[in-house]
Amino acid sequence: MRIILCGFGVVAQSFAKLLESRTAELYTKYGLKPRIVGVFDSKGSATDSSGLNLNKLLSVKKKYGTVGNYQKNSEKGGVNMIHSIDADVLIETTASNYKDAEPGLSHITAAMKAGLHIISVNKGPLALAFPSLMELASYNQVLMRFSGTVGGGTPILDYAKNSLSGERIVSFQGILNGTTNYILSNMHSGMSFETALTDAKKRGYVEADESLDLDGLDAAAKLVILANWIMGMKVTMPDIKLTGIRKVNDEIIKNAEKNATATKLIASCNGGLEVSPKQIPINDPLCVNGTLNAISFTSEHSGTQTIIGRGAGGTETASSILRDLIDIRKEISRF
Amino acid sequence: MRIILCGFGVVAQSFAKLLESRTAELYTKYGLKPRIVGVFDSKGSATDSSGLNLNKLLSVKKKYGTVGNYQKNSEKGGVNMIHSIDADVLIETTASNYKDAEPGLSHITAAMKAGLHIISVNKGPLALAFPSLMELASYNQVLMRFSGTVGGGTPILDYAKNSLSGERIVSFQGILNGTTNYILSNMHSGMSFETALTDAKKRGYVEADESLDLDGLDAAAKLVILANWIMGMKVTMPDIKLTGIRKVNDEIIKNAEKNATATKLIASCNGGLEVSPKQIPINDPLCVNGTLNAISFTSEHSGTQTIIGRGAGGTETASSILRDLIDIRKEISRF
Repeated sequence: MRIILCGFGVVAQSFAKLLESRTAELYTKYGLKPRIVGVFDSKGSATDSSGLNLNKLLSVKKKYGTVGNYQKNSEKGGVNMIHSIDADVLIETTASNYKDAEPGLSHITAAMKAGLHIISVNKGPLALAFPSLMELASYNQVLMRFSGTVGGGTPILDYAKNSLSGERIVSFQGILNGTTNYILSNMHSGMSFETALTDAKKRGYVEADESLDLDGLDAAAKLVILANWIMGMKVTMPDIKLTGIRKVNDEIIKNAEKNATATKLIASCNGGLEVSPKQIPINDPLCVNGTLNAISFTSEHSGTQTIIGRGAGGTETASSILRDLIDIRKEISRF
Repeated sequence: MRIILCGFGVVAQSFAKLLESRTAELYTKYGLKPRIVGVFDSKGSATDSSGLNLNKLLSVKKKYGTVGNYQKNSEKGGVNMIHSIDADVLIETTASNYKDAEPGLSHITAAMKAGLHIISVNKGPLALAFPSLMELASYNQVLMRFSGTVGGGTPILDYAKNSLSGERIVSFQGILNGTTNYILSNMHSGMSFETALTDAKKRGYVEADESLDLDGLDAAAKLVILANWIMGMKVTMPDIKLTGIRKVNDEIIKNAEKNATATKLIASCNGGLEVSPKQIPINDPLCVNGTLNAISFTSEHSGTQTIIGRGAGGTETASSILRDLIDIRKEISRF
């Protein structure tokens, strides 16, 4: 399978390392022979129709800060590359943007029109245009996968869609943003909001644009994806009732503790779609601390089931891209 | 799909009700048209090659305590029925037995030899003969599914096998028996072992043979199934190092609490296979209370992921049988 990789940040680099380390196993176990034929970052690009040398690519990126120095005369990146080279799958890893979803949205739509299957770990295009992207995929008969957008390495989407097949999920609620969970957990341990935020920033947990975490945009984007994929709704970001954690103060924290609950930023689908701080009983399996993510699905016949896992991280997300690639390989081979 | 149902207890009756209530949806959504062509319990049997009337079957069972009164001259049950009527799938729901796995083992092997696919919620045959049953299934080119044996309605097996595809699970540990978890949780709330056991019995949580719960046999059977299915091991019950909860006393409980841990009956696969009481940190997602089940899988790239859900119950297990049936339908239609 020939792959175009959009973006070469932490996740994409982890993915390249993962491919490199598992080449033999992927072929013997899944018949999968992935070749990255094109990659671009914000400063440059690299292409090779017989597959780029991933070790060289990684060291060039490390040395020069861009993949542009991989070879002398490289193709243009972005939509140009998608139009000019042959590939089977596009992996979109550029940064999530909830204003206009660019440049990811243009990459994905151009690739779909060119007949490429899509793996996106970029939440922006999905949050702003999920229903129309699914239509476009269906019209162009390509697959779209995005396991890495919710739960990082924890296969929440797949669990709800496949492991619960034959079941009807009636509602769900979850802690979908590890950063705010870390901050709120620390506030329950006695820190002020400001101290907890500073600490989270020091550890590199907070997005460059802190609003994505604190105002609940990241959690809302994940809720949009879950609502569309799991519940068959056709919704986008503006359909979410959204309240972030900036107004959570010591009083709210103390009141929560009095009732044997903890304050969590909860994304819920139960009738309406909402992201807001809520009090969760301490003995509820959903009530996890630190940077953990958790989600509880309530189904018609199997009761409530909770999945807990690390929400993010380069390796985890890279591993979800690989799962999607294997899944696409399986689906294609059925025709 | 023509189905032979072995046993007509709580789970099988729930399954019959589930089929009845979802006939239309199963056909439109999955192309599945299940007909139960034969059923037997310990006292009698009923057959109809065009499909038994499930409402009648349920009311006959309720009235007479056996399906034998459904019709005048019914076929013999058990292995005889498997030999004498045409069917595609055998669903084995008789009681788990860890001495010789009978009568379930004979039902399953006879059905496999006759070319029937198998769904078993009976753990006995799997615990005592998993590797040889898988070989027999493969030799006869039939599928064997058993989602309901571990986690009840919580699709633990499917999660680990499919949702984590592309990942290597390196170890796992779990609370796989809800009854002992209920007893131990109550001991942590101040009850003595005896009071907690009596309470669990009153609520109908304890197996007729209490040893299956208290001595860890039920948890060990589930561990055998997980080890074979998830980790590719070839093991049976005697390979498990087994300690039950009978020796857990107030002192052990108090010591656990001093260290901010709780005593849980843990089934683990980490090098060796073991079921024994262990101290689990209270803030570990695995540390759930009441009758809940929980399992943590540690994978190479996605960290540790925990799934929590109700472990048992007629409806939950019936819903897992339906999942297996849908899965078998899907697999068959690929050929």
